Parts: sequence; C-alpha cells; structure tokens
Amino acid sequence: MRRFVIIGQTASASGEFSLEDLPSSSGRLDALLRCLRAALLLSHGVRRDVSVTLVLRGVLATPRLLRVNGASAKFLRPDERSLALLVKKTLSAAPESLPHFQELRPGIELRDGDLPDVLSETAGAKLYLLDEAGADVREQTLPTDDGWFFLGDHTGLDVVSRALLERHGAVSLCVGPLSLHTEDVITLLHGELDRRFFVPAPA
Amino acid sequence: MRRFVIIGQTASASGEFSLEDLPSSSGRLDALLRCLRAALLLSHGVRRDVSVTLVLRGVLATPRLLRVNGASAKFLRPDERSLALLVKKTLSAAPESLPHFQELRPGIELRDGDLPDVLSETAGAKLYLLDEAGADVREQTLPTDDGWFFLGDHTGLDVVSRALLERHGAVSLCVGPLSLHTEDVITLLHGELDRRFFVPAPA
Repeated sequence: MRRFVIIGQTASASGEFSLEDLPSSSGRLDALLRCLRAALLLSHGVRRDVSVTLVLRGVLATPRLLRVNGASAKFLRPDERSLALLVKKTLSAAPESLPHFQELRPGIELRDGDLPDVLSETAGAKLYLLDEAGADVREQTLPTDDGWFFLGDHTGLDVVSRALLERHGAVSLCVGPLSLHTEDVITLLHGELDRRFFVPAPA
Repeated sequence: MRRFVIIGQTASASGEFSLEDLPSSSGRLDALLRCLRAALLLSHGVRRDVSVTLVLRGVLATPRLLRVNGASAKFLRPDERSLALLVKKTLSAAPESLPHFQELRPGIELRDGDLPDVLSETAGAKLYLLDEAGADVREQTLPTDDGWFFLGDHTGLDVVSRALLERHGAVSLCVGPLSLHTEDVITLLHGELDRRFFVPAPA
C-alpha cells in the first residue's frame, strides 16, 4: 500500500471555511485537496491501494489528521469544489475531541493529532521524504510498492518535521530538477512506482 | 517552447456556466482548467516557455480556441475556482465573431476555431499525440525541448481528431502503464522533458 502524508502548515482543521474563497479562508487547504486528487484518482477510477493523510495544523488549537482510504472511499470526484465540500462536511461533523481515528464518512477518518501520531503507526515500514535535495527517485532501489511518503505543502517542510522524519530513518527522494506543486510531486512519484510495480490484470 | 493542445469535446466555449457547479454546467471545463495548472504553474512561478490551447467544442455552435501564454499571462493562480473565473471572464467578454486570435486579457487569447486551425500553425514543427497505446516517452528520442503535444479530455480523443493528427505526422507517446487524468499526463510529460532539457541558471 502506498501511503501519502501531506503536512499542511496552515490548512484548516475546522470546517469553517468558505467554498467561494477557499485559498484564503481555509489556510490553503486547496493545495491539499489537489493532492488528494493526484494521490487517489485515476481516469474513471480510484487507486484502491492508496491512503492519504492530511496533517491540518491551521486554525484550531489542536492539529488534526484527516485520512482518506482509497479502498473504502466513496463519492470522490476530481473537481476541487466537490473535494472541498466533502472535507468541509467531515470536519464540521466532527466531535470536539477525537483522540483516535474515527470514520466519519465512507473511507474518511479523522482524529486529533500531528506528525508524531502518524509516525507511531509506521514501525518497521519504509519511510520516504520528498525533498528537492533528495536522491533521484529513478536511481533509488524501492524494494516494494509499499511505503510511507511524506510531503510538505506550498511552504515546504518545516525544520522540526524534517528532523523528526530523519530521526525515523526517512530516506530523502526527489522527482526532478524543478520546484513543483506538491500534487505534481505525487503524480511523478506514482508514475515511477506504477512503472516498476503495476501488474496488469490477466486478460 | 512546449505547446500543449487539449481537446475538450464538451467543454463550454461560452462564459455562461456556474462557478458553484462547474463540472455539470461547463461541460467538464473543470478538467481542462486543471490541465492549465499542470502545464503552466511551478511552485511559486509560471513556466514562461509554455503555451496551452484549449479546444472548446461544447455549447456554442462554433468551437473556440482559448490560448494561455506562459510568457505573458498574469494573475494565474493554482486553485480551480480562480482559473474558472479567469476563463469565464475571458469567454464572457468576447465579441460574437472572432476569426483570428485576439488577446482579451494579459496572455490569454481567444478565437473561433477547431483543431484544423491549430494545425495550420504547426508547419515544420514536431507533433506528438498522447495516447495510452503510444511509444514509451522515456524510450523516445525527443530532439529538442520544442514541440506540440496534443491530448484528449476525460472522454479520450475522438477518431476524427486522431486521424487528422496522424495525417499531420503526430507521433504517439505514452507516459506510463495506467489510464490517468489528462493533467497527470501533462505532469509526467513535463517531468521527462525537464529531466532532459532543463538547464539551471548559472550561480
């Protein structure tokens, strides 16, 4: 399973944002919604072997983790407004305290928490950190189609998160020579993994 | 210069669509807007050496070509609603008849026309057709960073357009083993071209 974790430094953990002015009112949650699309959707289908965790550090006193599981998610549409509405409804329906993941809509889970809570799930797994200064993904051995891939948002990755990931043994990877939107980094990473590990269904 | 041409079979050539229900009311213009982002935007910047032409075949009796030039475009933001508003204003401000390209906003041109009108500009240039059955882009010689890249929308490419492109010598390329959104195909294509042709500015 491919697991993407995107750290939103300012992205709203509250549903109190406006669909008419998403970038400003949601702390740039729009960038994270586009990552959901890139990570989870194929042409006319969902990547069932993918989960995406958004780390929402903005607005509320307590950060939250919103997870979308491709295996069980329903009603995922590619347009940004539909994804924004889905996330808004999920965040708005949440109880005040959520110490553990709770599925609030099909395939969508929410909990209070931050990066350390994600890392507590990763024991024994391969961790990767997407970073312009990392090793070229095309030259790296990626032993299986499995792993946790951590990415920053439009502001990059903060030093504390980076240090924490490195202490957990995350390997730095880069996908190309230019500085790209996080969603494009996800697409390029999927592209490389698909080439190596995709097995067509028998005819 | 990299030139992308995306053929929208149903995408609105009129500005009479709703930002609150873009996919239905615009004939899936949303998918084409996401292609604009993928083709033109870097993290905190615009690809100045890129132009994108959207072939808008929906709604109006006459199809239109909407072109965004990275070299001169202003106010390009990555979120879908901002791009939709920009295109809506451009289409709404257009005179009824536009036999030639006219710049209606900075870097954004519009004209009546369809694929043959685009092809009339391509004499002597390399043409590529993005296609799941094409040759692997990683194995192809791409002699320069220049070229016209033609892509279908979420419905694929119609047979008439495909035949026309093939008669003009377009080479079929594919970017990987899965069927992806057009915007992801653009990102993967950029990824390959960036690796081959990107020259960092001298320090």
